[in-house]
Amino acid sequence: MKKVVLVTGAAGFIGRYVARCYHEHGWYVIALGHGSFGENEQHKWGIDEWHYAECDFSGLSAARAERASVIVHCAGSGSVGLSVKYPEVDFARNTGCTASVLGFIRQCATHIKFILLSSAAVYGMVEQLPIQENTVLKPISPYGLHKKMSEELCQLYGRQYGIQSIIVRLFSVYGNGLRKQLLWDACNKMAQSEAVFWGTGKETRDWVHVTDVAELLFIAKNFADVKANAVNCGSGRSVSIETVLKNLASSLGYSENIKFNGQVDVGNPKDYLADIDNVASWGWKPQKELSEGVDDYVRWFNEQR
Amino acid sequence: MKKVVLVTGAAGFIGRYVARCYHEHGWYVIALGHGSFGENEQHKWGIDEWHYAECDFSGLSAARAERASVIVHCAGSGSVGLSVKYPEVDFARNTGCTASVLGFIRQCATHIKFILLSSAAVYGMVEQLPIQENTVLKPISPYGLHKKMSEELCQLYGRQYGIQSIIVRLFSVYGNGLRKQLLWDACNKMAQSEAVFWGTGKETRDWVHVTDVAELLFIAKNFADVKANAVNCGSGRSVSIETVLKNLASSLGYSENIKFNGQVDVGNPKDYLADIDNVASWGWKPQKELSEGVDDYVRWFNEQR
Repeated sequence: MKKVVLVTGAAGFIGRYVARCYHEHGWYVIALGHGSFGENEQHKWGIDEWHYAECDFSGLSAARAERASVIVHCAGSGSVGLSVKYPEVDFARNTGCTASVLGFIRQCATHIKFILLSSAAVYGMVEQLPIQENTVLKPISPYGLHKKMSEELCQLYGRQYGIQSIIVRLFSVYGNGLRKQLLWDACNKMAQSEAVFWGTGKETRDWVHVTDVAELLFIAKNFADVKANAVNCGSGRSVSIETVLKNLASSLGYSENIKFNGQVDVGNPKDYLADIDNVASWGWKPQKELSEGVDDYVRWFNEQR
Repeated sequence: MKKVVLVTGAAGFIGRYVARCYHEHGWYVIALGHGSFGENEQHKWGIDEWHYAECDFSGLSAARAERASVIVHCAGSGSVGLSVKYPEVDFARNTGCTASVLGFIRQCATHIKFILLSSAAVYGMVEQLPIQENTVLKPISPYGLHKKMSEELCQLYGRQYGIQSIIVRLFSVYGNGLRKQLLWDACNKMAQSEAVFWGTGKETRDWVHVTDVAELLFIAKNFADVKANAVNCGSGRSVSIETVLKNLASSLGYSENIKFNGQVDVGNPKDYLADIDNVASWGWKPQKELSEGVDDYVRWFNEQR
C-alpha cells in the first residue's frame, strides 16, 4: 500500500511542487486548500485527491487527514508586504492556521509527522552571515513574527503532546509558476522596457529553486521529532539582485541598462545567506544552478504571454 | 465629559474589579464579554453598558469601542491546567483574541491605549528571584506561551503601526469572587474536613489582591507606549502555600492538621517572586495585607454558603 501525505496549500506555488515530489517518490497525495485545478492539471501535479477546503479542523476532518503519515503545511500567506498591510489576515493564515493543523493532529492523529514551512524572515536583522539556525530570532515584519509563533507552537506540541515536527526555514525560493517577487516583476518590466528597480542592486539573497525545496521537504519528514528542530533551506550561496537581473536580461534578450532607484528598504536586511550544513548532513544538496533556473523561468514566462 | 474605558472579559473575576475601579475614578465604563449580570449587579460593578458579545472585531464594532480612550483586555482563558488540556481553545481565547482587539484598534481607533493582562507564566522556569521584567521568557505551559505571543503582538503593533500598549504580568491574584485555585479549593476542602493539598507546602507564591491589581491597571494606561513595555504586578513578597493555608484555617476556624501529599508538580516553578521596582516607580504600592485579604475572602466564602 502506498504511503500517504497530505499537502496543505497545495494549489500554491510551493505546494504544487511538494505534491508532485511526493507523487514521484510513489506516495498517495491528498491535497487541501484554496484555489482550483482542472482535472488534467491536478494529475499533472501528482494530486490524487483535491479538497477545496479551509485549512482548519473541519477541513482536515472532512478530508480524512488521519490517513496521512505526513502533513506538509504549505498553506499560509507568503508575503512580507501583504503582512504589513493586513497583519490580522497574516496572523490568521499563518499562526492561526498552524495552530489548527497541530490541534487536529493532537486530537485525531498523533502519528502524523508535521512539516512546517517557515522563512528566513524569522531571523530579522542579522549580524553574522551565513545565518545559523540557532541564531536568536528577532523578526521585524508581521510575517516574520507570525512564522516564529508558528515555530513555537510546533515546539509546544512536541514538548507537551509528543507531536513530531520539523521546521524548514525557506530563503529566496523561485521557479516556474511564481507570479510575484523579483523575477516576475522583472520579466514584466523588461517586457515593457521599464527596467528600474528598487534598491541599489548590491543587496544579496540566497536563491533556491523550488524543485530543490520540494525534494528537501520530502527528506525532512525523516527528521521530524518532538524537539521540532529548525533547518535552513537555501543554496548556501549569496547572489546580488543585480547579478540575477543581468542573468534574466540576457536570457530574455533585453539589452537596455538595468537601473536602480538607490533607495534602501529599512525593513529588509541588505544581505541574506543560509548556513546549510544541517541539511547537507541529511544528504540534501541543491541541484539547480541559478543561471539554469533563471533560463527555465524565462522560458515559462514567455509561454504565458 | 467623562473619559471612556472599554473592559473586555468584564464579567470575569479581574474584569469586574477593573470596571469598578475605573468607575470609581469617574470614568464611563463600557464592558464586553461572556457571562451575565443582573441589572443591579451590573451597576454595583460600575458598568454603564454591558455588551454580551465575542471579543472580536464585530463585537468591538457593535459596542462602538472607538468611543473608548483605553481598552483593558481582561478577556481570555486564565488557567494553566485547562490550557494543557485544551491548548487550541487557549490559543484562540488568548493569542487569537488579543490579535482581534489589536486589529480593531489598528483599523478603527488608533488613539486607544491598550492594556494587556499577561502572566508570570510567561517566565517559565526562572533561575533568579525576584524576577525582573527583562528576564528571557521561557514559558512552559500552552497558557504561558500564548500570553508571550500576545505580548509580542503588542510589540509588533507598536513598532509597525504606532499602537500604544502596556503589558501587565500578573502574579498570584486572589480576592473575593475567585472561584478557583488555592483559596477556593482550600475553603471547600476545609469545609468538608478534607485538608490534604498538593505539593509540600513549602512552595512560595507572590500574592496580590485583586483590588490592588485593578488600581495598577488604572494607573498603567498612563504608561502605554509604542514600545509595549511589560511590568510585573505582584506584592514583591513571597509567601509559602503552607503559611497562606494556616492563615485561612485560622480565619475559617478550622483546627485540624493541614497535610500535603509531597508530590512535586514538575511543570510549575517551586518559587515565584516579582521584582516590583518598575511599578513602584509609577507610585503604585499594594495596599491589602495578605492576612486581611484572606480574612475578607473567608467572610465572602461563608456568605456564599
